[in-house]
Amino acid sequence: MRNVKAAVCIKCGAEYAAGNDTYTCKKCGGVLEIVYDYDYIKSQLNREKLAARKDFSIWRYLELLPIEEGSRLGPLRVGWSPLYKTEKLGEMLGLKNLYVKDDGINPTSSLKDRASAIAVARAFHAGKDTVACSSTGNAASSLAGGAAAMGLKSVIFVPERAPQGKVTQLLIFGATVISVKGNYEETFRLSAAAIEKYGWYNRNAAINPYLSEGKKTVSLEIAEQLGFKAPDYVAISVGDGCTIAGVWKGFKDLYAVGLIDKLPRLISVQAGGCCPVNRAIERGANGRPAPIEWMDENTLADSIAVGAPRNGDKALAAIQESNGITINVSDEEILAAMRLLGRSAGVFGEPAGVTGTAGLVKAAGQGLIPADALVVSVVTGNGLKDVVSAQKAASAASGTMAANGGASNLLRIAPDMALLTEEFSRRGIG
Amino acid sequence: MRNVKAAVCIKCGAEYAAGNDTYTCKKCGGVLEIVYDYDYIKSQLNREKLAARKDFSIWRYLELLPIEEGSRLGPLRVGWSPLYKTEKLGEMLGLKNLYVKDDGINPTSSLKDRASAIAVARAFHAGKDTVACSSTGNAASSLAGGAAAMGLKSVIFVPERAPQGKVTQLLIFGATVISVKGNYEETFRLSAAAIEKYGWYNRNAAINPYLSEGKKTVSLEIAEQLGFKAPDYVAISVGDGCTIAGVWKGFKDLYAVGLIDKLPRLISVQAGGCCPVNRAIERGANGRPAPIEWMDENTLADSIAVGAPRNGDKALAAIQESNGITINVSDEEILAAMRLLGRSAGVFGEPAGVTGTAGLVKAAGQGLIPADALVVSVVTGNGLKDVVSAQKAASAASGTMAANGGASNLLRIAPDMALLTEEFSRRGIG
Repeated sequence: MRNVKAAVCIKCGAEYAAGNDTYTCKKCGGVLEIVYDYDYIKSQLNREKLAARKDFSIWRYLELLPIEEGSRLGPLRVGWSPLYKTEKLGEMLGLKNLYVKDDGINPTSSLKDRASAIAVARAFHAGKDTVACSSTGNAASSLAGGAAAMGLKSVIFVPERAPQGKVTQLLIFGATVISVKGNYEETFRLSAAAIEKYGWYNRNAAINPYLSEGKKTVSLEIAEQLGFKAPDYVAISVGDGCTIAGVWKGFKDLYAVGLIDKLPRLISVQAGGCCPVNRAIERGANGRPAPIEWMDENTLADSIAVGAPRNGDKALAAIQESNGITINVSDEEILAAMRLLGRSAGVFGEPAGVTGTAGLVKAAGQGLIPADALVVSVVTGNGLKDVVSAQKAASAASGTMAANGGASNLLRIAPDMALLTEEFSRRGIG
Repeated sequence: MRNVKAAVCIKCGAEYAAGNDTYTCKKCGGVLEIVYDYDYIKSQLNREKLAARKDFSIWRYLELLPIEEGSRLGPLRVGWSPLYKTEKLGEMLGLKNLYVKDDGINPTSSLKDRASAIAVARAFHAGKDTVACSSTGNAASSLAGGAAAMGLKSVIFVPERAPQGKVTQLLIFGATVISVKGNYEETFRLSAAAIEKYGWYNRNAAINPYLSEGKKTVSLEIAEQLGFKAPDYVAISVGDGCTIAGVWKGFKDLYAVGLIDKLPRLISVQAGGCCPVNRAIERGANGRPAPIEWMDENTLADSIAVGAPRNGDKALAAIQESNGITINVSDEEILAAMRLLGRSAGVFGEPAGVTGTAGLVKAAGQGLIPADALVVSVVTGNGLKDVVSAQKAASAASGTMAANGGASNLLRIAPDMALLTEEFSRRGIG
């Protein structure tokens, strides 16, 4: 890979040749980061070249991706999700320049498709016939879908609490699914052991540093969609830590090659019931975060219910380097954000998908965000992924459950116009 | 609208001024069709102009759409869904040039977003503050989402059997949902009465001829994505009849303005348990279809479970004019198509969404499609819309239910490597 220099340990700085799929430091066990040859990339890429490209997917950024020359790229169209200027939502939050990036519009309906596209291309190039990961859901379905499209087998480890919709997607994509009677950490460990034993390609984003390179494409797109402008703030939900690390890497890469001229501040949003990353920042002192300590996984936002974040170090670095803000939200605030995005912008996100928005709502309410700041909230997954939570969100009208357990704007009625008009006039509709 | 000549009754030929939102013929009650000034459009649009456009949504085809000058266009990014060359699936079916258009990749995850985008733009331009429709689900969620993004209210009538995921989407989008204790026909009639009484904008596709103009954009995209080439065959599921009519209209419009030089044959696929349109074609004689007779709605493919298709006449005309093929499939064949698309192409469609593919599988098996034909199968909705059916599909391995009622490739296991390897060796995995 002419564009990649090395894989470097973020803890001890040890360097490894890029492309041999060493994932963690052989000396200290630290997570690796992919380091690019920015001078070379600068000579290959500029705004005009990008603007002329017709490939509206993550592959438009090939110079900034760790893909071996001549690799077969997966056929699914990943990325280039819409970036909406959400004026009504902005008005409600007192923000004049608020954008929402809807990453639920991806082949398997989440941002994780970006990472899996890299995994599948690298696995295929490495001659592997099977790819594997552990995941609370979205990484898994994106891997299973991407593998199916590429003609690879997939083996997926999910904790038993993974929502129905996500597991079903896996099975439709023909994956072998191991539903582990345990939490995410136990699931992860079992997958790691099996991957080592069977020699499958490892798509555990926390371990495999190539994957956050896929995730960073969300930032490349945000900047390009804003006319090569970096936002002032980017709000994103945080679980394992890989996504926020990827988001940050994307902006840093763009800055390094001169495609943007400033860096955003990250708003790291976690569920209050499971916020080990934010807690480490908040407990830090003298400009250094405290060590990450494990937490229980008490949130309905299953994709970010990660008590022992495997990529915590990269996440902490991203938050600190960006002079970021940490915000923890309750499940109620997450459900409220689902309704808010749906009603004000027509965007339907899953709980973990809208947690970034929930944090932004809170931050704006606390006056932490200047009114004229350029703000982007990334919605990381489609609401259809977790209909049970969406029903909870829909039911909770104005924060209180409707008496019948259903949503107050849902009427069940016989097909009779007289009954309907009576009901409408009682409710003041029409 | 300089590009639109009139709205013309498809039964008696009566003409109505375009844009006044007359929906059905005042003389004979027939459905209207939007007739364009093709000479004018030819003077405005050509392949080069289209190729230069940066708007990758249905709005790139504005010259071919019934949108008033200066209308506010909805902000959601509708259309330009991916068209995949599905080589593996093609091999399995003996088709060398098979493409799948994944229309589940739309803002509310179905093809119906195309029609709702037109509805919302026209409603806004007409000064309406509320839009309404009856729908088995997808038209509804697309309307609710589009309305929310545009700042309009929505009132949606659904039959009580509509799947959870679809109703939930409506509530998240802030729609008022009327769940009607009756079938689709009763739901439709109640909505029509209420829409008339309250003066809402009518998004019933069967009645409102502007909406299939939105749906036709799927054909405009197919042709452009194929390099302005018309396919030889297009397979599509048929319920109310509006979608296949829209698909046909799209190709006819392109042909009329010289952007393609031939027309495809349509493959009209219905569920065997509810196939009034196909039955009318099959019972026809002397080149004329028999009258459409109502049928029960016996299929799990809820979006096309329409016993009394409101746009049957347009559908019949489309099938006949295109020298089309009718294929009826069982629910088992629909579920098999879900698995087939997932496993071979990484595309996850809902039952009604993959019914076109199920029909194509059958037609190919019967030798009805030449091996070198250029064939497109449109997947009209995302599988996450109906997880219950997807679970049925996932469970039915090789046509037989696994003994435990679960999918044969789903293993539930404790987090224990010894147990896992034992289970893997028993199953021949690894």
